[in-house]
Amino acid sequence: MTRSLEVRLHEADLEHQREDFDPQTLDDGAFDSEADRLHEECGVFGVHNHPDAAALTALGLHALQHRGQEAAGIVSFDGARFHSERRLGLVGDNFSKREVIERLPGQSAIGHTRYSTTGGTILRNVQPLFAELETGGFAVCHNGNLTNGLTLRRRLIADGAIYQATSDTEVILHLVARSRRNRFTDRFIDALGQIEGGYAFVGMTNKKLIGARDPLGIRPLVIGELGGKYILTSETCALDIIGARFVREVAVGEVVVISDQGLESIIPFPQRKPRPCIFEYVYFARPDSIVDGKNVYGLRKQIGATLASEAPVEADVVVPVPDSGVPAAIGFAHRSGIPYELGIIRNHYVGRTFIQPTQTVRELGVRLKHSANRAVVEGQRIVLVDDSIVRGTTSRKIVQMMRDAGAREVHFRIASPPIKFPDYYGIDMPDQDKLLAARMSLEEMKVYLGVDSLAFISIDGLYRALGEPGRDPVQPQFTDHYFTGDYPTPITDLVSESAKQLSLLAEAS
Amino acid sequence: MTRSLEVRLHEADLEHQREDFDPQTLDDGAFDSEADRLHEECGVFGVHNHPDAAALTALGLHALQHRGQEAAGIVSFDGARFHSERRLGLVGDNFSKREVIERLPGQSAIGHTRYSTTGGTILRNVQPLFAELETGGFAVCHNGNLTNGLTLRRRLIADGAIYQATSDTEVILHLVARSRRNRFTDRFIDALGQIEGGYAFVGMTNKKLIGARDPLGIRPLVIGELGGKYILTSETCALDIIGARFVREVAVGEVVVISDQGLESIIPFPQRKPRPCIFEYVYFARPDSIVDGKNVYGLRKQIGATLASEAPVEADVVVPVPDSGVPAAIGFAHRSGIPYELGIIRNHYVGRTFIQPTQTVRELGVRLKHSANRAVVEGQRIVLVDDSIVRGTTSRKIVQMMRDAGAREVHFRIASPPIKFPDYYGIDMPDQDKLLAARMSLEEMKVYLGVDSLAFISIDGLYRALGEPGRDPVQPQFTDHYFTGDYPTPITDLVSESAKQLSLLAEAS
Amino acid sequence: MTRSLEVRLHEADLEHQREDFDPQTLDDGAFDSEADRLHEECGVFGVHNHPDAAALTALGLHALQHRGQEAAGIVSFDGARFHSERRLGLVGDNFSKREVIERLPGQSAIGHTRYSTTGGTILRNVQPLFAELETGGFAVCHNGNLTNGLTLRRRLIADGAIYQATSDTEVILHLVARSRRNRFTDRFIDALGQIEGGYAFVGMTNKKLIGARDPLGIRPLVIGELGGKYILTSETCALDIIGARFVREVAVGEVVVISDQGLESIIPFPQRKPRPCIFEYVYFARPDSIVDGKNVYGLRKQIGATLASEAPVEADVVVPVPDSGVPAAIGFAHRSGIPYELGIIRNHYVGRTFIQPTQTVRELGVRLKHSANRAVVEGQRIVLVDDSIVRGTTSRKIVQMMRDAGAREVHFRIASPPIKFPDYYGIDMPDQDKLLAARMSLEEMKVYLGVDSLAFISIDGLYRALGEPGRDPVQPQFTDHYFTGDYPTPITDLVSESAKQLSLLAEAS
Amino acid sequence: MTRSLEVRLHEADLEHQREDFDPQTLDDGAFDSEADRLHEECGVFGVHNHPDAAALTALGLHALQHRGQEAAGIVSFDGARFHSERRLGLVGDNFSKREVIERLPGQSAIGHTRYSTTGGTILRNVQPLFAELETGGFAVCHNGNLTNGLTLRRRLIADGAIYQATSDTEVILHLVARSRRNRFTDRFIDALGQIEGGYAFVGMTNKKLIGARDPLGIRPLVIGELGGKYILTSETCALDIIGARFVREVAVGEVVVISDQGLESIIPFPQRKPRPCIFEYVYFARPDSIVDGKNVYGLRKQIGATLASEAPVEADVVVPVPDSGVPAAIGFAHRSGIPYELGIIRNHYVGRTFIQPTQTVRELGVRLKHSANRAVVEGQRIVLVDDSIVRGTTSRKIVQMMRDAGAREVHFRIASPPIKFPDYYGIDMPDQDKLLAARMSLEEMKVYLGVDSLAFISIDGLYRALGEPGRDPVQPQFTDHYFTGDYPTPITDLVSESAKQLSLLAEAS
Repeated sequence: MTRSLEVRLHEADLEHQREDFDPQTLDDGAFDSEADRLHEECGVFGVHNHPDAAALTALGLHALQHRGQEAAGIVSFDGARFHSERRLGLVGDNFSKREVIERLPGQSAIGHTRYSTTGGTILRNVQPLFAELETGGFAVCHNGNLTNGLTLRRRLIADGAIYQATSDTEVILHLVARSRRNRFTDRFIDALGQIEGGYAFVGMTNKKLIGARDPLGIRPLVIGELGGKYILTSETCALDIIGARFVREVAVGEVVVISDQGLESIIPFPQRKPRPCIFEYVYFARPDSIVDGKNVYGLRKQIGATLASEAPVEADVVVPVPDSGVPAAIGFAHRSGIPYELGIIRNHYVGRTFIQPTQTVRELGVRLKHSANRAVVEGQRIVLVDDSIVRGTTSRKIVQMMRDAGAREVHFRIASPPIKFPDYYGIDMPDQDKLLAARMSLEEMKVYLGVDSLAFISIDGLYRALGEPGRDPVQPQFTDHYFTGDYPTPITDLVSESAKQLSLLAEAS
Repeated sequence: MTRSLEVRLHEADLEHQREDFDPQTLDDGAFDSEADRLHEECGVFGVHNHPDAAALTALGLHALQHRGQEAAGIVSFDGARFHSERRLGLVGDNFSKREVIERLPGQSAIGHTRYSTTGGTILRNVQPLFAELETGGFAVCHNGNLTNGLTLRRRLIADGAIYQATSDTEVILHLVARSRRNRFTDRFIDALGQIEGGYAFVGMTNKKLIGARDPLGIRPLVIGELGGKYILTSETCALDIIGARFVREVAVGEVVVISDQGLESIIPFPQRKPRPCIFEYVYFARPDSIVDGKNVYGLRKQIGATLASEAPVEADVVVPVPDSGVPAAIGFAHRSGIPYELGIIRNHYVGRTFIQPTQTVRELGVRLKHSANRAVVEGQRIVLVDDSIVRGTTSRKIVQMMRDAGAREVHFRIASPPIKFPDYYGIDMPDQDKLLAARMSLEEMKVYLGVDSLAFISIDGLYRALGEPGRDPVQPQFTDHYFTGDYPTPITDLVSESAKQLSLLAEAS
Repeated sequence: MTRSLEVRLHEADLEHQREDFDPQTLDDGAFDSEADRLHEECGVFGVHNHPDAAALTALGLHALQHRGQEAAGIVSFDGARFHSERRLGLVGDNFSKREVIERLPGQSAIGHTRYSTTGGTILRNVQPLFAELETGGFAVCHNGNLTNGLTLRRRLIADGAIYQATSDTEVILHLVARSRRNRFTDRFIDALGQIEGGYAFVGMTNKKLIGARDPLGIRPLVIGELGGKYILTSETCALDIIGARFVREVAVGEVVVISDQGLESIIPFPQRKPRPCIFEYVYFARPDSIVDGKNVYGLRKQIGATLASEAPVEADVVVPVPDSGVPAAIGFAHRSGIPYELGIIRNHYVGRTFIQPTQTVRELGVRLKHSANRAVVEGQRIVLVDDSIVRGTTSRKIVQMMRDAGAREVHFRIASPPIKFPDYYGIDMPDQDKLLAARMSLEEMKVYLGVDSLAFISIDGLYRALGEPGRDPVQPQFTDHYFTGDYPTPITDLVSESAKQLSLLAEAS
Repeated sequence: MTRSLEVRLHEADLEHQREDFDPQTLDDGAFDSEADRLHEECGVFGVHNHPDAAALTALGLHALQHRGQEAAGIVSFDGARFHSERRLGLVGDNFSKREVIERLPGQSAIGHTRYSTTGGTILRNVQPLFAELETGGFAVCHNGNLTNGLTLRRRLIADGAIYQATSDTEVILHLVARSRRNRFTDRFIDALGQIEGGYAFVGMTNKKLIGARDPLGIRPLVIGELGGKYILTSETCALDIIGARFVREVAVGEVVVISDQGLESIIPFPQRKPRPCIFEYVYFARPDSIVDGKNVYGLRKQIGATLASEAPVEADVVVPVPDSGVPAAIGFAHRSGIPYELGIIRNHYVGRTFIQPTQTVRELGVRLKHSANRAVVEGQRIVLVDDSIVRGTTSRKIVQMMRDAGAREVHFRIASPPIKFPDYYGIDMPDQDKLLAARMSLEEMKVYLGVDSLAFISIDGLYRALGEPGRDPVQPQFTDHYFTGDYPTPITDLVSESAKQLSLLAEAS
C-alpha cells in the first residue's frame, strides 16, 4: 500500500525533531477508544483589527476543539512584532489564563487547533507556522492535506530549502518565500497555484488577514463578522461562541484578503463545481454548526430518520452510542416511533488511555468510557445507533456490553455508508486494511460485531438526507471517496512515491 | 449565619498547611459553571485479597469520578507494608499508568476520590489518611461529613492530639488511636460511637477491610464481589466497570469487617429507620447506578414524567440542559408527548475556568460550556428541563441563550424541589444566602430567570416518583433538609460554635 | 548491628508516606560522590519581630545550605495566621522569588534546611513542622537527633498519638501537645526534659521565638542581632550574610525565649560541661564561621599544619582534594614549605548522579566531579590532603587519578583521625561496616588506597590544633565518638530496639 | 553604537518565536553576579563510530559546561535515522539519565552546550541544528560568531530562505543546502568560503563527522582519540573526562572529515598565521586544559607571577577572588612571597538570581555568592587578585566586603589588561559603555573600586607570560582586540547595518 509508505516517510523525518515532549505512549494493554474514531486534523481561526484579537481566537479555537485536541497555537501581530504561543494540549488548558493572552498583544491574530496523526506530537509541528520573508513576517495555519505535498517538498529540498517541521503547511511557507512576485498577495496566489488537495488556509501578515479554500471546497472555511471586524474560521460554532455573525462561506477556490480597507475577494483560478467533504456533515462538524446552509444536528436527525425508513426493525428501545450516535438515534426514534433511551452511559472524565495492567483485569472487559445502563437494556430488543464504523473494535465491545447487560436482541444501525477507502485530504484514518468495511462483507461484519441485524445508510439515502435527489455519479455533489473510492483530485504523491522516497535518506557524497 | 463561622474556622486552619500546590485561582472575570453545581465530597472504594487490588481500585475510582474530581488517592497493603499514592487531579490522569499501579503492590487496597470544598485543595487533605497505631497501620477514607467534627477536634486538641490535615476523616483516626480497647475492630466501633453525621467509611488494616455506614444511611455504601473477593464502594457503577457482582447495600449503622475469614456484619448500635440522602437519586449518583434497588436513570425519567404531570405546558420541544437534565427531559417528553430535541450543545472539552479578559469579551456572553442549537430553538416554544437550581446564575444564562437563539417561549421545569437550606452531611453547597430559592419567591425566580413559566417538582411528587406514597412528615423516608429544613440529626458543631471557635487561635501562655 | 535495625524501622514507616515526589533513584552504574561524604542533617534559623522576617530567613538558610541541600522550609507568623512553604531542593531555587516570600508575610519566621538520610526525601518530612495546640499554633524545626526518639515514639503511639512524618522533630511536637502544663514555655521545657541526644531547636508561637540547645551543646546554636531584633541560627555565617551582629552562642542546655519583651534565658536543668561535636570544626561548619570563638578556616589550617608536623613527608607539591581539603592543605603547605598547587580541578556543575550507561563507559574511570591537572602532577611527588576518609571509595579513585596523571609518589594526609564508630546525634553516616577505618588497619588502608604513605592526624594532635592541651580522657572537651567510640550520652533507642521494634508492624486485633 | 543595533535586530526576530519557556526574569532588586562576567557562547563535541557515542558526548559536554550553562543538545545517527534531544539547563540535569541516552542511539553523535546572549533562551535556538538536505540529513553545531552573519541572512531571506532560529549556525545550514556542488564536503567548503568571523564547527552526516576551524583559529577545536575512534571538541578537558587521548589541535582554517575510512584533512583556503583568542588562556578554558601545548593553570599562575613582578606591593596576604582569581593568586603569592589565604569564601549553591525583596534587605549588602573570611582579612594589608574586570560592579562590592571585614589596605591586581573594546567573535560582553576600563582612567577606576592601589598586567607582560617575547604589533600572535581594539577580521555586518536593518521589518506588499 502506497499509503503506508507516505506515513513511514513522515516518521523518518519526525525522528530527528523529537523535542521536549514525551508523548504518552500506548501500553500494550492500554485502552484507546479514540483510536477507533476518525479525526479531522485541524480547526483554524483568524480575526483582523479587533482589540481582543487573541482572546477571541482562543475562544474560537475552544469552540473548534472537537476538530483537534492535541495541540493549539496562536500568533498575534501588535503593529510592530509577531507574538507566538504554541502548546500541546487543550485550548482550555493552555489559553485560558490571562497571562497567556497578555503575551499575545495586538489587534490581529490567527490560531489553530490540531489533531496529530503520528505517535508523537512535537511542538515544532504545532501551527501557526511563521517565517520572516523579504516582504515581512508571515504566519499561516491550515486545515487539510496536500496531495502533492511530498512531491513539492522533495523539489524544494533539492533546491536548498530547509524544512524544520513535517507538516504540509511548511510547503506553502517555502513556496511563498521563493515566489518571484513582488506583492505578498501575488506570492500567496503563486504558491496556491502549485498545490493540490483539500485545504483551508488562514494566514496573517503585518497588514492583512488572508484566507483560501481549495478549488473543490473539500475543507470548510467561513466568514464571520463581529462589530464590523472580519473573522475567518472553520465552522460557524466558532462564531457563535463569541457572538459573531455568520456572513457567508468562503467560496470554492476563493482567496479572501482582509485589511483595513475591507474584504477583497479573489478567484485566481477557473471556478469548479463545489464538492465539500461529506464527512463534515456526518461526523466532524459540531451539531450546532451550519454547514452549507444546513444545521448539522438537523441533518444527522434526518440521516437517522432515513436510516429508519431504509432499514426498519421491530424493537423496544433506540439506544444511541453516546455522544456520536445521539442525533441520528433521535431521528431514528422519531421516525420509527420506538422510544429513545439512554442505554449506555458515557464517562466524560476518561482520558485517552488507561491501564489494564494484568490479564485478569483485561479480561474483565473493562468499561472506561461507556457503561451499560442495565435497567434500560435488560430483556429488551434494542436498536443501537452510531454515526459510523471505523475499525469496528469499539463497536464490537459495545455490542458485547449490551449483551452482557441482558439485551435480548441487538440491531445495529449506522448513519453513514461503509468506510472502505483511505483519505488524503486531512482526515486521520487507520490504514485501509484496518477498516472493517474494507475487510468484510456485510454478513461478515454482522457476525464479527455479534448483532442480530446490521444496516448502513445507503449512499443515495445519505445524499437524500442531505437534501440532494441522490448521488450524481458523473459530478458527485460531495467528496465521498472513503465510501466510493471516487477521489476528487489526482493523488500526485502516490504516483511518485514508491520509486523515489528512499533516496531521500541515502547520502550523496 | 453559624455556617459561615464554620467555614472560616476551616480556612484559618488551612492557611498554615498550604504546600506545593498553587490552586488555580479564579479571576474576577473567570467563568466557572461548576460553582453553580452541588458537589458530593467523595467516592470510596476498597477491595480485599485480590491480586489486582490497586488496579481495581483505580478503575473503581474512575467510575466514581462524578463524585469528586479534584483529587484521588489509593493505599495498598502488600502483606508487610502500606503504600500510598495521592494526587491532585483526575483518576484517569494520575492512576492510569502502569508504573503508578506498580508502586501500589499488594492484595488489598482502598481508594478515594474527592471534591474539595475550600479554595485551595492541598495534598495533605487528600485521602486515604494513614496512621501507625499501636495495633499496626490503619488507612481510612470517608464520604460524608461529621456534624460534631469540630467539637471532637477541639476536644482532641485540648487533649494533646496533633492535627495535620483539616478533614473530618482525621477525627476518626485520632479516636481510633486513642481508644483504650484492645482489638482493632473494637477501637473502630468505639470511635464510631462518638461521631455524628452522615458518613461512609472504608478502612484497611494489615488484616482487614472495614466499612461503616452512618445510622441513618445518609451516605451510600454497597458491597460487591469479584471472583469470591469482597468489594466496598459508594455506588454500583464502580462494580460494573470491573465486572463485579452487586451483593447488597451496607445496612444503616452497619459495620462490615472483611478478612480472609469472610465478611462479618456488626450492628453495634440500636437500629434506626433508614433515611438516605434524596440527592443521591436526584443528582449525585450516576444514571446507571442502582440505589436502594432502583435504577437512577429510571427514577430520574420518572421524576421528569411526574413533573410533566404536575406542571404541564403547551410547547414545541423539550430541551434538556446537558447533561444534568437529560433523563428528566426524556421522561418529561415521553409523558407530555412533546418531542425531545438537543437544543443545547455541550462542549465537553471545557475546563473549569476560562478567561474573559476584557469587558468587551465578557459582554459577548461567552458560551464556553453550552451553546444554543439555534435550528432547534428558533421560533419554538421550548420546555427547558434541568435537575436543580442552585445559585441560578447558570440557569439564567442558559435561558438568555435560548432567547438569543430565537426561542419564542421558555418554560423551565426543575426535577427537584427548591433548594433552600444548607447541608452538613458532605454536600458542598453555596452559603444559604446564595441559594436562589432561599432568596426569592417562585414569582421572583421566574422574573430573575426570565422565563415564561417556572415549576419545580413538589416534595410529595418527588417522593412518589421514588416509589413512596408521599413524604411521611413524621418519619420522612429520605434525608431532604435542603428542601425542607428538616435535619435528620442534631448539628452539634453549630450549637457550640459561636462562643468557642475564636479561642482556638488565641495563645494561652 | 542495632544501627541497621533503626534504619529499617524508619524505612518501614516511610513507605506508606511516599507522596508526590519521585526521588531520583541511583542506578547501579551511577556515580555518587556525595555518598562518600558525611552529612549534617540540618541548619536552622529564626528571627523575631523584623519586617523582612521571611526574606532574612531565606537568606540565612542560603548561607546554611552546606548543612543540608535536599529540602528547605519556612514558616512565618503574621500576627493572626501561620504561613508555611516547604520545598524539596535548594533554598536558592525555591525561596529566591519575590512571590514565594510574599506568601510568607509577617514579622516572625523560622526556617530549616535539611539533608535527608533516607533514600526518598518526602515533603511531609520537610521542616518546620506545625501543630495547632490548645495554646495556639506552634512551628518548630530541629538540627540533631534524639537518642531516645524511637523509644518515645513507641510510647506516644501506644498512647494514641498519630505520627505523620518520620522525623524526631515530631516527637517534640507531641510531647509539647500532651504536656499538662499551662504556659507554652513550661510545656516546651516539660518536653525537653524527656528527650535525650544532640539537638538545636528553633520554634515559634504566635508570641515567641524559642531556641534550645542540648545539655552538652553537641549541636550548635548561636544568637545574633540585626537592628535590635534577635536571630537564632546554627552558624555565624548565616548572620554575616544579612549583616547581623553575632551576640553569643546559646549555652549548653539553655532555653532562649525571645518575645517583644526581649530575650529571656532559662537554664531548666542542672548545667554540664560543654562537649560540642568536633566534626563541626573539622568538617561541617563553613570556613568563615566562628565556632566557640574560633575561625573555622584558621582551625583547619592549623590542623593541616599540625598534620605536617606529625607526619612530614618529602615531596614536590601539596595538592588539596577540592574543596574539602583546601584549608588543611594550605596549612600543610605553609608549615612544610612545600608549594601548594591545584593538582585537581573540581567541576562545580556536577549534579549528584550521572549515568555510566555501559560497561565500556564505566571502565573509562569517568571523572565527573574531579579531574587531574596533569601539568601539576606529572612526574611529581605529591602530598594529597583531604579532611577525612569515610568509605574510601572516592579517595581511592582520586589517588588513582593522580597516578594516571603521572604522579611519581602519592602521600595521603588526612586532617581528621580515622572514623570508626557510628553517630547517633544527627550526622548522616554510612553503616559502620562501610567505614574504611572500621574495616581496615592503617597498613590495609594504605594498600587499598594505593598510596605511598598514609597518615591521619592523631586525636591529641587534633585537640591541640583546636587549642586544647590534648584530649582529656576523663572529661573529653569535645564529642568525638566517631573517632574514639566514647559516646557522650546513653543511646536509649539501641538498648530497647532489638526486642521491641518488630511488634510495631504486627497487628494486634 | 552599531553593536546595539545588531542586538535589537536579534530581539525583534526572537519575539515571534518565544515558546514554552518562560525565562527567569531579573527583578530590579535581583542580584546577578554572572552579569559581570564574560561568557563564551559555546562548547562543541563530536564522536564518530563509537558504540557509546551519545553517552561520550554527554560526558564531554559536561566537561565543557564552563563554556555555556543555559542549554545543551545532542544529535545522534543510528545508521538510518537522526535522533535529537535538546534541553534548556545543565548537561548534568538533562543528559545524565539512562533513558535520555537511550533515546539517542547510534555510533555517531555531536553535541553542544550554550550560553545565551539574549534575555530569553528558546529551545529553537538550542543546537545542534538539523536539516534534511538533498544529500541527506545534516546536523551541525558551532562555537563562535560570524561577522557577516546578518549580511548573509538578509541575502538568503531575499532569496526565499526561511529562518526558524536566530543563531548564526542556521546560516551555514542554508549555505550548505543551497550550494550547487554535488558532494557534501564540497558543499560544506563552499559554505565556509562565504562566511567570516571566528568559529569552530562540528557537523555530522549519515557518513561523516566533520569539523572546521576559522582561518585565524580564533575559536579552539581539538582532535582526540578513544579506542581508535576520533573525537572533535573545544577543549582537551572533554577528552580527559572520558579517558581519550589528545591527538592535535585542528589547524587554522582546516576542515577535518572523519569517516569509516579515517581522518581526512583539507586546507581549502590559503593558510594564514594563527591568531587564537587570548581570552581562552586568560579566562575561558578550564585550568586543566592544554591550549596550544600549554597548561592553562600554569599559564595563569605565570600571569600572576608576572603581575607580581610588574606591580609589586608590600602586603600581608594574597586573597584570590574565588574561583576566577585562584591560579593567578597562587602565582602572585609564589613570586611575591606573600602568603596565599582564602580571605573570601564562595557559596557554590548560589543560583543566578536571588531576591532582595525590600530596600531594607537590599541595603544589608547581601552576600549571596561571596563572603568575607573575616579572620583572614581583619587588620591586614591584602592583595586581592582576579582574572579581569568587566563592569566592575562585582569587584567594587568585593572590595567593600574586604573593607567591612576590617582589611587595613586593599591592593587590587588584575590578571588581564583593561577590557575596552567589544567582541564580535562569540564572546558575550556588555555593551562598550558598560565596560569599566572603557569608561574610566586607571585613577578613576581606583577611586570607583575603592582600593589603595590598582594594577592590570600589561599587554606585553601578558604575551610574555604566555611564552612570547612580547606582542608583535604588526602580526599580533593572539586575537586581543578587547584590550587593543585591533580586530583580526573585517566586521562586515557593522558596515552594512545602519542603513539596511530596519527595512527588514517593513512589509512590502
